[in-house]
Amino acid sequence: MLDFSNIKVISFDADDTLWQNENLFRKTEQKFCTIMSPYASKEQSMKELWKTEVKNIPCYGYGIKAFVLDMLEAGLKLSKNKLSANETKRLINLGKKLIKSPIVLFDGAENTLKKLSKKYKIIVTTKGDLLEQENKIYRSGLIKYLRHIEVMSEKDKKSYARLLKELDVKPQEFLMVGNSVKSDILPVLALGAKAVFIPSKFTWFYENGDASKISSENFIELKEISQLLKML
Amino acid sequence: MLDFSNIKVISFDADDTLWQNENLFRKTEQKFCTIMSPYASKEQSMKELWKTEVKNIPCYGYGIKAFVLDMLEAGLKLSKNKLSANETKRLINLGKKLIKSPIVLFDGAENTLKKLSKKYKIIVTTKGDLLEQENKIYRSGLIKYLRHIEVMSEKDKKSYARLLKELDVKPQEFLMVGNSVKSDILPVLALGAKAVFIPSKFTWFYENGDASKISSENFIELKEISQLLKML
Repeated sequence: MLDFSNIKVISFDADDTLWQNENLFRKTEQKFCTIMSPYASKEQSMKELWKTEVKNIPCYGYGIKAFVLDMLEAGLKLSKNKLSANETKRLINLGKKLIKSPIVLFDGAENTLKKLSKKYKIIVTTKGDLLEQENKIYRSGLIKYLRHIEVMSEKDKKSYARLLKELDVKPQEFLMVGNSVKSDILPVLALGAKAVFIPSKFTWFYENGDASKISSENFIELKEISQLLKML
Repeated sequence: MLDFSNIKVISFDADDTLWQNENLFRKTEQKFCTIMSPYASKEQSMKELWKTEVKNIPCYGYGIKAFVLDMLEAGLKLSKNKLSANETKRLINLGKKLIKSPIVLFDGAENTLKKLSKKYKIIVTTKGDLLEQENKIYRSGLIKYLRHIEVMSEKDKKSYARLLKELDVKPQEFLMVGNSVKSDILPVLALGAKAVFIPSKFTWFYENGDASKISSENFIELKEISQLLKML
């Protein structure tokens, strides 16, 4: 059982841990498939888009601008270089709409952060596009509970080690809460720090991971964020 | 005259302070104008691109992905929605090429950082796309001299104040070195910290500012980065 007694810093992932995000991408993917329907089936369009996304991560990283460039590249391929100016425009506008989407907090997210912030140093550790992530945090209304915002280009062991050093905190004093086994849980456990996994309804295929295989006394899985309050 | 005696942290801007950057954007702008030549004069194309860039900063921020989306949007407008799939592809590829451009350090940049790092805590403070900036710093070979990398979404007084707090350093102990009056000099001087302006041959129109109007004993203008060694 996870021992919370010496925790000093609780770090929350942002997208799909504090607020809905992936569902917006899913909706946008559906719209992409509709725009591509003169050229390809829904299945072909999704497959090409996912392939393009993964291929471009080293070049573009994460975030909406990368996603729009991926949609355009996949669209050019699927249309065999026949993508019209109007279709290009529609894809760009899907991105702009996504950037401006309102933030929908998960139930209990604000109350949990509010209460925990009285006892712990609360931070947000997220990856992706710097401006997008900062804007979402500001718009979320949660900034008043946060003592630090860390946007990483990749959430790996090395990045978390650097963060812990920056925060001047020992691994056993650090708890990460998130919905991605790959980005929020495994690298944190590898450092000897603690991790709470809260699966979300939608998870990007690239972040999927099997939590059932994790056996660590530094790890626990919860159903919703407010359950943290009973344990901390 | 700038008093260097109590400086502890020297922070360098990255693009066009440590290495060439703006010249690559200028070359890409020329290529954009060539691709647009069936639709518009060079002057019209540049004007539309600049207008689009400034308009989209709140939405897209800075960096190459934003620049590509700006080129596409300006291209759609200039072509009156006739931009061909091939032209779209060429614009996307301009961006990919830009992202992969080799880093060309300015004369004396490495030697200056190497020598100063023996006496001072050297950091890089830059704005723009997180992944792009990190990748450039890693590829520059300068990482071994750096104790911290700060990528900001906007280099304003508030962001610098937060950085100084994070570094636990007083304004009079902090020196910023950069090529942008707007982003590297004015917000730093406003905090009571010190600033060295090194104008670069090319500066993005958005970053232009008049250094001749600055009268502060915390400020000096130098011609090249290696001149710092004579003063520090």
